[in-house]
Amino acid sequence: MPTCKPLLLNAFNMNCVGHINHGLWAHPRDRSIDYHSLDYWTGLARTLERGGFDGLFLADILGVYDVYQEGIELTLAESIQLPVNDPLLLVPAMAQVTEHLGFGVTVNLSYETPYSFARRFSTLDHLTRGRIGWNIVTGYLDSAARAMGLDGQLEHDRRYERAEEFMAVVYALWEGSWEDSAVLRDKAGRRFADGAKVHEIDHHGEFYRLRGYHLSEPSRQRTPVLYQAGSSGRGQAFAARHAECVFISLQDRAKARELVRSLRRQAVEAGRRADDLKIFLGATAIVADSDAEARERLAEYQRYANPEAGLAHFAASTGIDFSRFGLDEPIRRGNRNAIQSAVDNLTAAERAVTPRALLEQHALGGRYTPLVGSGATVADELARWVEEVDIDGFNLARTVVPECFDAFVDLVVPELRERGLVKRDYPLDAQGRPQSLRQRLFGAGDRLPQRHPAAAYRRSSAGASPSCSAAAAAPETL
Amino acid sequence: MPTCKPLLLNAFNMNCVGHINHGLWAHPRDRSIDYHSLDYWTGLARTLERGGFDGLFLADILGVYDVYQEGIELTLAESIQLPVNDPLLLVPAMAQVTEHLGFGVTVNLSYETPYSFARRFSTLDHLTRGRIGWNIVTGYLDSAARAMGLDGQLEHDRRYERAEEFMAVVYALWEGSWEDSAVLRDKAGRRFADGAKVHEIDHHGEFYRLRGYHLSEPSRQRTPVLYQAGSSGRGQAFAARHAECVFISLQDRAKARELVRSLRRQAVEAGRRADDLKIFLGATAIVADSDAEARERLAEYQRYANPEAGLAHFAASTGIDFSRFGLDEPIRRGNRNAIQSAVDNLTAAERAVTPRALLEQHALGGRYTPLVGSGATVADELARWVEEVDIDGFNLARTVVPECFDAFVDLVVPELRERGLVKRDYPLDAQGRPQSLRQRLFGAGDRLPQRHPAAAYRRSSAGASPSCSAAAAAPETL
Repeated sequence: MPTCKPLLLNAFNMNCVGHINHGLWAHPRDRSIDYHSLDYWTGLARTLERGGFDGLFLADILGVYDVYQEGIELTLAESIQLPVNDPLLLVPAMAQVTEHLGFGVTVNLSYETPYSFARRFSTLDHLTRGRIGWNIVTGYLDSAARAMGLDGQLEHDRRYERAEEFMAVVYALWEGSWEDSAVLRDKAGRRFADGAKVHEIDHHGEFYRLRGYHLSEPSRQRTPVLYQAGSSGRGQAFAARHAECVFISLQDRAKARELVRSLRRQAVEAGRRADDLKIFLGATAIVADSDAEARERLAEYQRYANPEAGLAHFAASTGIDFSRFGLDEPIRRGNRNAIQSAVDNLTAAERAVTPRALLEQHALGGRYTPLVGSGATVADELARWVEEVDIDGFNLARTVVPECFDAFVDLVVPELRERGLVKRDYPLDAQGRPQSLRQRLFGAGDRLPQRHPAAAYRRSSAGASPSCSAAAAAPETL
Repeated sequence: MPTCKPLLLNAFNMNCVGHINHGLWAHPRDRSIDYHSLDYWTGLARTLERGGFDGLFLADILGVYDVYQEGIELTLAESIQLPVNDPLLLVPAMAQVTEHLGFGVTVNLSYETPYSFARRFSTLDHLTRGRIGWNIVTGYLDSAARAMGLDGQLEHDRRYERAEEFMAVVYALWEGSWEDSAVLRDKAGRRFADGAKVHEIDHHGEFYRLRGYHLSEPSRQRTPVLYQAGSSGRGQAFAARHAECVFISLQDRAKARELVRSLRRQAVEAGRRADDLKIFLGATAIVADSDAEARERLAEYQRYANPEAGLAHFAASTGIDFSRFGLDEPIRRGNRNAIQSAVDNLTAAERAVTPRALLEQHALGGRYTPLVGSGATVADELARWVEEVDIDGFNLARTVVPECFDAFVDLVVPELRERGLVKRDYPLDAQGRPQSLRQRLFGAGDRLPQRHPAAAYRRSSAGASPSCSAAAAAPETL
């Protein structure tokens, strides 16, 4: 293998029954209907840490998928991300049974207040000892806006303008309110913290106002590891400026390579480095002892998968009600709620897509082309993606749980370790502690580097030398 | 002992360093500066369950205590509820290491959106298998309002009007969106849930608008056990209507008895039963092997306690900056932010209070008169409170942790068990499972009784008989 950079592994999951590969909840061995119990999640976390995974990524959605057939009948029958419980509350229990595994969690900022939101993530960074990440989303469902008491959503680009301001406020809270040396924990001197080094944030912007001190003392990473998945032009620009981890879901190598190149170029243009972005591809793997057995397993899973449920999910993602088209009718128009870029993609040129073609693409109930084979076959395939497309790792969707994660850990991970692509043990930091998530992902410090826009919100003590203070806090980031 | 009703035990804590008895963080054996680590909390949870505690009550505050000396210097030096991390995120890890212990958590509804708030508590009710409670507060700090982007708070009684509407919306989500028989989990029939039995909530009120389905399927208790601590007239009326557990902090028996009588009378007037309210007294116990040793321990603790920090906390609670008065000057007026009822209490008649008198009241750093003695002495004292004041139990504040909880469990609980006041084992439900928190507190079902206002939001299936459906769901509550 010519590639030598390590391959990053995230599991992709959600606090619900049907996530990506729809219908598989009905498989007799599948346990995803137990998503509401703690054991389900602590068991998963232990499996992932056994397999050297870097993180567990938890998606989330506010609102319901009511585009397909203009209702939620199928959504509820197949449990297509409904019911969906809060993902953040899973993290403390999983952190309790692991030492290294990171957690990236989606929270839609459009319905959050920066002050309490920032405290929630600081709390998680404390409780996990620096293993928390935040996937920044701005939402896209009208049903969420209505449920949150609004008439509708902000227009797409305005949502990103609001997101930019939200980031400014939470960076100020996380990075700028408490100086590094503010907390003393000095019992003998009776000083827990030094009031001169804790600062009020005073923000008065277009979307947000805040005057107050951050409620949490500094945590190991301060700002959580930042994830983003926007694919629009505005979304890519946002990722290039803020994100440390980017998720892409393009299953076509050439298109994915083009997107990766564009993202890295935009990061450099934004004053960052090309490898400041770790890029993860959404993937589904079906693994067994041999290639033939893996193909059999795929066929078995497909008997339980529901392509129509996958289509209903895709309908919500694109805003197009595919049930309004004949099975072989080319999709040449959207409807009221359609997302124009999605319509454009589906109607492009002569190869306009039909519902039947979409159903075939969703044979396993989801939109990722499954990688099928023995551990060696799948490991080779993953390595080839990293090598050819310049991604950094994978966001591995589940099929039948827990066996899909066990099979990956038992069959693929040893092959990846054999190839030197996945670590045998989690490295420790200089003090012999488990690394923070950011340390492990970037091989540098706990904190964001100075070239990241969040660093502009740091402040040094009036009395202290700024360079001293910065050097003490984050020597690796200068 | 003539009393035969069991005595309920809550530990009272907060995700911060200094909670009630201020200054004790500086005690060499105190570990409260480790509040940001998971082990600190899982250790506490295990101790409480060993001692047969019914619950752990977690307070919270948004905003900072900036009334005393018009700043936060002392607040930070003594860590007076600042820093303060999010309390809800502690629950999953503690639930993971316990089976019976309940969790009551404060969330200020003034800054919450009902849709996402309701999901958060449903998620916790699922993960704890029915052991979650919510302490309803509306907030009182201007610093919180500013930090949340507002010019100031709503006026006191308007906050309660908003709270009434908030309750209506979350009751509708918790009790009315999913029918009892909506979730099928039917793999063979490929129906996770029946769309005909999941209903959209459509609320358009003065303070809140919401149109949407509750995102979580029904949890064991659905509505969390409801706690409340309001002591104003409006607060008492709210408690009498909604609360299942009420916290009082009056340390004078005659006044406490009067308040308890008033609360129970108001509950009956609101169509509920006098014992639908479980009333907890805030208390501090200093226990040792003998009365003499307990008095020595109190004296030792007091050397580390900081009465001025207690006074700064009390200043924020009353809105009066006591530092503006001479040490022996009677407090005869408030200042700009003063809470009028607090001023009235302190200035009443000839016995107007001085800062010196308040400092003496805060000799242990907090406002609860410590119960000091051997296990037997403290047990007798607790029993006497229950008997004479008609309360149901205690909310036990911490002093030096973890030794204060260990001492209580090792010395007081055996005496209470001896007297038949605390159970020897947690009872199980009819199916042999640990009881839900509501079941244990009230000896009835998992759900709120039909006479509680939340029950009005339940709905039966169009096809099913309402009485059948109600009987199946909550036979014990009719």
